[in-house]
Order: sequence, then structure tokens, then C-alpha cells
Amino acid sequence: MQHSYALLATRLKAAIRSGQYPVGERLPSVRELAAAHAVSVSTATRCYRQLEREGYADARYKSGMYVADWKALRQARAMAPAAAATAAAATAAATSAAATATSPAAMEYERLASLQHRMTQLYALTAQPLPLALHLASAAPEWYPCDALARLAQRHLRHHPLALGAYPSGTGLPAFKAELIAHLATCGIDAAPGDVLITNGATEAMQIALRSVARAGDTVIVESPVYFGLLQTLENLGLRALEVPCAPGQGMSLEALEYALEHQPDVRAIVVMPTFQNPLGDCMPDAAKQRLLKIAQRHDITVIEDDAFGDLGHKTDRPPALKAWDRDGRVIYCGSCSKSMAPAFRLGWVLGGRRQRQLESLKISSSLAAPLLEQQVLADYMKSGKLPAHLRKLRTRLASVVPLARDSVRQHFPAGTRARGPEGGWWLWLELPEPLDTLALLRAAVGRGISYTPGALFSATGKYAHCLRLNIARPWTPALAAGLRALGEAARLAQADAPRQPGRKDAPRP
Amino acid sequence: MQHSYALLATRLKAAIRSGQYPVGERLPSVRELAAAHAVSVSTATRCYRQLEREGYADARYKSGMYVADWKALRQARAMAPAAAATAAAATAAATSAAATATSPAAMEYERLASLQHRMTQLYALTAQPLPLALHLASAAPEWYPCDALARLAQRHLRHHPLALGAYPSGTGLPAFKAELIAHLATCGIDAAPGDVLITNGATEAMQIALRSVARAGDTVIVESPVYFGLLQTLENLGLRALEVPCAPGQGMSLEALEYALEHQPDVRAIVVMPTFQNPLGDCMPDAAKQRLLKIAQRHDITVIEDDAFGDLGHKTDRPPALKAWDRDGRVIYCGSCSKSMAPAFRLGWVLGGRRQRQLESLKISSSLAAPLLEQQVLADYMKSGKLPAHLRKLRTRLASVVPLARDSVRQHFPAGTRARGPEGGWWLWLELPEPLDTLALLRAAVGRGISYTPGALFSATGKYAHCLRLNIARPWTPALAAGLRALGEAARLAQADAPRQPGRKDAPRP
Repeated sequence: MQHSYALLATRLKAAIRSGQYPVGERLPSVRELAAAHAVSVSTATRCYRQLEREGYADARYKSGMYVADWKALRQARAMAPAAAATAAAATAAATSAAATATSPAAMEYERLASLQHRMTQLYALTAQPLPLALHLASAAPEWYPCDALARLAQRHLRHHPLALGAYPSGTGLPAFKAELIAHLATCGIDAAPGDVLITNGATEAMQIALRSVARAGDTVIVESPVYFGLLQTLENLGLRALEVPCAPGQGMSLEALEYALEHQPDVRAIVVMPTFQNPLGDCMPDAAKQRLLKIAQRHDITVIEDDAFGDLGHKTDRPPALKAWDRDGRVIYCGSCSKSMAPAFRLGWVLGGRRQRQLESLKISSSLAAPLLEQQVLADYMKSGKLPAHLRKLRTRLASVVPLARDSVRQHFPAGTRARGPEGGWWLWLELPEPLDTLALLRAAVGRGISYTPGALFSATGKYAHCLRLNIARPWTPALAAGLRALGEAARLAQADAPRQPGRKDAPRP
Repeated sequence: MQHSYALLATRLKAAIRSGQYPVGERLPSVRELAAAHAVSVSTATRCYRQLEREGYADARYKSGMYVADWKALRQARAMAPAAAATAAAATAAATSAAATATSPAAMEYERLASLQHRMTQLYALTAQPLPLALHLASAAPEWYPCDALARLAQRHLRHHPLALGAYPSGTGLPAFKAELIAHLATCGIDAAPGDVLITNGATEAMQIALRSVARAGDTVIVESPVYFGLLQTLENLGLRALEVPCAPGQGMSLEALEYALEHQPDVRAIVVMPTFQNPLGDCMPDAAKQRLLKIAQRHDITVIEDDAFGDLGHKTDRPPALKAWDRDGRVIYCGSCSKSMAPAFRLGWVLGGRRQRQLESLKISSSLAAPLLEQQVLADYMKSGKLPAHLRKLRTRLASVVPLARDSVRQHFPAGTRARGPEGGWWLWLELPEPLDTLALLRAAVGRGISYTPGALFSATGKYAHCLRLNIARPWTPALAAGLRALGEAARLAQADAPRQPGRKDAPRP
């Protein structure tokens, strides 16, 4: 039996495909639709949900339903199988695992730049069938010690099945904390088990860190450009982000920071990613890290350090974390295994200094405890002594792609495009000639089967509209080379179409 | 090499054991200690941390360090091995797995009743070596399908190791959502995949549900007595809890609710556990659930339904969730696998009705995504068709313990003790004769190797000081029988010691 909502959806899709409702046009309201077809309001609602899932309609907040760019979507879908065939078998398997991991939510380009939904919408973009998705933080699965982790997990499950019946509690598995503390020592951090709290990824660490220092209406200082997920977190906490620009190769400009602090009273925290910043990939020099701490001390402000990429420097040594110089428990340090060790594990950690107790309370009321199996497996893996060799290999691989990707940008992107090469991590930050709008370009790119993160997402103020961030953490394959070439061509086409403007005053370079 | 903080800790412990610092006495401040022993402040701080970890000292918020009740702790430790030997081998293995899962944080009885720390402190109590821990939500591990889950996990890891390298994103694994939707149908809920968001347990579901409707300073209505974890979550969100009493066998009193809504403007939400409430174990009748929804509609208020225990009724049928009657997307429904299927998995779900999009945004900025392996394993398990038989068995086992535990209470507890038997779930709620203080009794109980949750934790207003909650979700063994007898004896001793009062006006019965 086909449900009435499905019948109605079939009819509406036919009307959309026939051009009766063109792309971008507003569709009837739920009540209008229900009345027109003599169905209930809930049937009309489910019909629209179905259209959203299939990419034919977009819901806009407080505005209604609109016809989505369904042609671009179908084009991307048509390309997907061909591209998958050319990819390495291992990558294909993992990509398929990742693809089934996502719901087929519809992408809403219009809401991509909304503060509250930019991250959610990037996830929706992930759910599209994209041969070359370079917009999120996932690196090539085969670059991680998956086999070793899977074997350790199987062993643990074989020997301790009853552990699955135990309710997790506490601040983290002691065995995992012990290994973590040894690893943190390589970042210059001296910690005891009571200093460490295990979280559901660095995102949760940051969420509770922010809640421990600031309340709705407060201001926190962030880098500019800044990781868009942080902006969504701040928006959802009712916090105001004061963006302080980064200086090339230096991280957050300390001159600008001091100026901001002198002119903005009541800043509750400085949130920084001093080691291989997202999206710029820069590392703040040791002396600047120490100076940043002194500034924070002088103004008596908490520093929240996001060190998710700290282990992924392309040069030899692991730079010390900012936390390494923290003498008065002022720095709340957030780390994660997602980038460096085990992307699927969703484990992070936070060292809150003088706010540790409060963080423990916030963590429990945020999501109780972190899952134990993953903690046990990671503890076993770290104890095996294989982590340093894995990190060396991962860093070498990351570094090897950078010059090739930069070369490709030089060859295929519009003249005047500047690439900021990362010192660590896996972002290539491109500044395209203005007035090129990378948010508009994204539709064309997705049509060509490639995605990236538009620059506009890295600021709440509309800066960086001409920039974009590429995730290049994957083997250099013909498919990647072809994708970057296709993106460059799309950018050159867009440039040719764009109205010539003598440069915009309101969009300073980062 | 022994660190200087460890040397100092050894010296202080000797002083405490010798009686130089008696239990409850304030210890020197960190600065005093540092000056007296010519060490740095950070060494003195680490020394105190060590003492806290070993149970010799308690930190009190904004007050300093105090000598802890270290004798009771050592007594409990001494009892632990003997009790473990009498327990079934399976339980012992799982208990040991659970024990290693917790940090050895020190228990601070003084902070147990603090709104911000009651949950954290109960966790710390878990970290004590307790032969019979009946204070938290964990049931006997062997009552869960651990072997089946472990086998499915091993199979998945063997066939898809590369999935561990994939970064989770989206609102949940589609295969898991599909199984969940089929299961929700048994609760009377009709859902589509886009209606469901997978979370890190029901705690995260509740956290984001509350944040979607209320801001700091707002008021929400909760049941009384109420799950203490909810009070800590509300406190950490800056929300005010308005407690509406439960009527015996009815859940929240709807008469009291209507009165409260008429006299309290600007209530943002009603948070209820209508099916097998924690701690009372009552189930709101179907007609009352429908009436509650009508009241919420009339006042245009969101209802947040916590259904964590909904599958665990002792009678035959699964009662419909409140959400089953929700026609206008007003009910935010929160569920979990932790009580019914897989305690270690930390998976929950939320159906937010008209607030679904906002919940998706809040979830991403709270902790990104839920781990995939657990979702896959639970999807496989549910698909195997074994869930209904497991739930039937679990419910039968839960129901079988109730009359035995009630008998034991009748025999061994002070005359006048009333037991509220659960219709579902695993809580036995005891009302002891006043003025018995169950918070004070807890020390004596822990000294006898048994724990429970003091009644004072189930209200922000100091009610229920004479009540306690017991977790009886374990096989009826001689150890459990002996533990309940010992607890009853301790209560009778405390009653004999307590000053006689003619009843307190400020402590109404629930």
C-alpha cells in the first residue's frame, strides 16, 4: 500500500520536474496543500518531508517551502558511481561506510551562512552523493590504524563481553587517562588523572569550557578566520564572538588582541587554536604563545585552547601547547582523537585547570559519561607503543600532498588566487580574486561533484566571501587532481561572469 | 624518584592517621601548607589532590580542605574482597570492569546535596570500593544481551575495520534509525527518519531539549520527587525548577500542575517521566497522559518527555508514550538504550516535533555526532528480532525482585517505613519515619558496604530528607538480602539516636 503522503509527493515531484514549479519558487503552504488535495495537514507535512529528503524542496525558517536546486543534485548523483570506480578500493569501502552513516537530509544553500545552521548545513552537504567531498574534517580512512584498533576492540569484546552491560560513570577510564597523560607530556603538559576529563570529542570539551566561563550575552574573543563550528556553538549558547584577525604565520595577532581587550570590557575568554589553526594551518610561535598567556594574565581572562590539530605538524617536532606554559590554571585545554588517531571514536579530553570541578559537573549534565569501549581500545593502542610511528607517518603523508595541491591551484585557478599552505593539519586556505563569491560558486562545484567550505562561514561578519577552505587530507590521486582542476575551472567561469568591482572596502584580507 | 608532593602527602596522611588532624577538621590552606614545608604552591596543590584521591581529604567549595571520613572508607575497602567472593562470578567480572571504569575521585558527603554537584558526587560515591552499590542507575550486567552485542560488534569490526577511520556526521545511522522507528511504533509513536536525532544518551537529549525551549533565568516545571540528574542539568543551564508533586500511582498531579500554571506565568516547559518515573516507578494512566497534553496545549507550553524506563514495565503491555498522542509537535520525546538494551553504549534519541531542526543544531554544537560502531551494533541486534524476547525477560526479572525486597524492608527497617513499589523500572522508594535523615545515614551505610541515593537529592527544596531510593535491579542473592538487612539495622540505630521531634511541617510526603 502506498501512503497518501507518498502519492502526493509523487504528484508534486512530477510538477517540479515539468517546470510547473521552477527552482527557487515558493511552494504552497502545508495548509494550502492539504486543502487543495483534500488530505490532512499531517499528510501534507509528511509529503514535504519526503520532498526535502529527496532534494526537491528546501524548508526556509519561518518562510515556508521552496523548490530546491534538484537538477544540480541529480547531476552529482549521476557522477558518483563513475568516480567511485576510479578511487582506490580501500577508500571506496570507507567512503561507502561514511555515506551510509549520514541521513539523506536535504542541503539548503540559503541557510549555509546562517550562524545557527552553518555546521548543520555542511553536514547536509555531506549527505549529498559527492565523489569528492573536501568540505569537512575527515581525512582518508586508510591513513588511520584501523586494523590495529579493530583487532584490539575485537580482543576486548571477546574477553570482556559483560563490560557492555556496565553503565559508564566517572571522568574517564583510568587506563586511558594514564596513556593520555603520557601523550600530553609530549605536548609539554604535566597532568595528573584528576586534571583530565574525558568528553564526547573536542566539540563537547569546547562546549562545556565555554559554559564554564560565560553566560548568554557575554563576549568571547575568537580568531578570524575561525572554525565555523565554534561560531555555531557560540550562537547556540547566546555568546557574542569578537573576531580578532590572524597574522600570517603567527596565529591570532597579539597587537590586535591587546587593542581589542583595551577597548572591549567584560571579555570572558579568549578562544584560540594556537597550533595548526583551522582554517589557516598556521602555528603560533612559542614566544607568541607565552606572550598571549601574559596578556591573558594581565587582563585576568581565561584562555580556551583547542588543540585538535596539534599533533599534525608537517615539520619534525611537536610544538608545545599553550597549556605547557600555564602556571595558574588559566588555560582550559581541549584535545581530541578524531584527527590524529581514530576518527570514528568521538573521544576528546579537557584539562580545565582551576575550573576542573565545574567542567566535571557540566559534562555530567551535558551527556553523562563517554563510552568505555572506545576508551579501552585507545588505551590498549597507545600502550602498545605504536602511536608515535603512526603520527610520523600521518604527518609525512599530509605534508606530501601540500605542494601538489598548491601546484594545481597555481595552474588551474583564476590568476591572483593565493594559497595559504598549512604548517600542520590538512587545510588549504585559498583567497580568490574579489568579488568572487565562493558561497555562490559552491552550487556549481557540487554540480561538478566537488565540495569545499565557503570562506563566508569562517566569520560572523561576512568577511572571507572570496575565500574557501579545502580538505586535502587524502592520497594524491588522478581523481583529486581532476577535481581540483574542475573546481579551478568553475572558479574561472564564475570570475568571468562576475560584475567587475574595484575591490570591496568591507572585506579585509585575513 | 618520589615526587615532593608525594613525600608531603605521605607526611600529611601520617598526621591524619595519628589523629593530629581529626575527621572534619579544616586542613592548612594551600599557601599555608606550601610556606610551612618550603615547597611551591603547585606542589602543595598536588599533595592535596593526592589526599583527595586516597580519600583522606575533602575539598569544600570556596572553603578549603577538610579531613575526610577516611576510617569509614577503609572499612568499606576492607569489606570489599569478602563480598566480591560471595557474588556470582559473572557479576564479579562485570563489577570489576565497572570499577576500573571509574576514577578514584574522593567522595564529598558535604557536597552531595549541592545542586551543581549532586550527580558528580554520586559518581564519586561509585568510585568507592562498595560491595553493594545501589545508588546509581546500573542494573546487573548479566541481564543484558552482552554476548549477542559483543558478537555483532566483533563481526562488524572484522568486516569493516576501515569504518573506524570514517568521521561520523549527520543525525544518526540510517540503519539504526530504521530499527528505532519500528521500536517506537510499539510505544505508539509514528516517526519518519527526519523526525529522529541520535544523541549521546538521554542525558544529552534532555540537555538539548531544555536548551531549545528555555534560556537562563527561565522556569520549567518538573515532578517532585524528581531525578537528581535533571536538577543538576537545570542548575547548570541557569534554569529554575518548579516542583509539582506526584500523586501515588498517577505521576505528576494534574490538579497541582493546573494550579501551578495558573499562578506562575512564563513557564517554558513541563518536564515529565510519565512512564515508570524515576524515583517513584509510577506510570501515569493513559487518560492522565492525554489530559496532561491538553493542559499543555491550553497554556501553549512544550512538554519534554523522558521515556528512559518506558520499556521496563513489570506488567505485560508497553504503555503508550505521551508522545503517542502528540498531534501538534509539542512533545519533545527523549529515549535511551542504557536501561533497556545496552548500558555501555551511551546512545539516546530525541524526537523534537516542531523543534527538530533547532535540536539538530544544538546537538552538533554540543558534541557533533554520536559514535557509529554502537549504532551499527544496536541496529544489527534490533534487526535480528531478539529485542522483544530480551525485554520480556528483563521485565520478568525486575518484577521478581520487588516482593522480596519489600519483604526485607518490612522485616528489617524501622517500624513505619513505607515502600513505594515500582510498576516499572528498578527503584524502590522508601519513606522512613521522620526525622530520620538519610543523608546522614549514608555514611553509616557506606561503612557497612552498602549505598543508596538519599531522598534529599530528589528535590531542590530540601524535601524527602527522610526518604531514600534503592536500585534493586539485580538477582536476589544472599549478599543483597544481607545488605538490605544491614541497611535496615543502620536505619534503626540512627532512629534510636535521632532527637524526637513531633513531625516537620516543611517536609510534606510525596
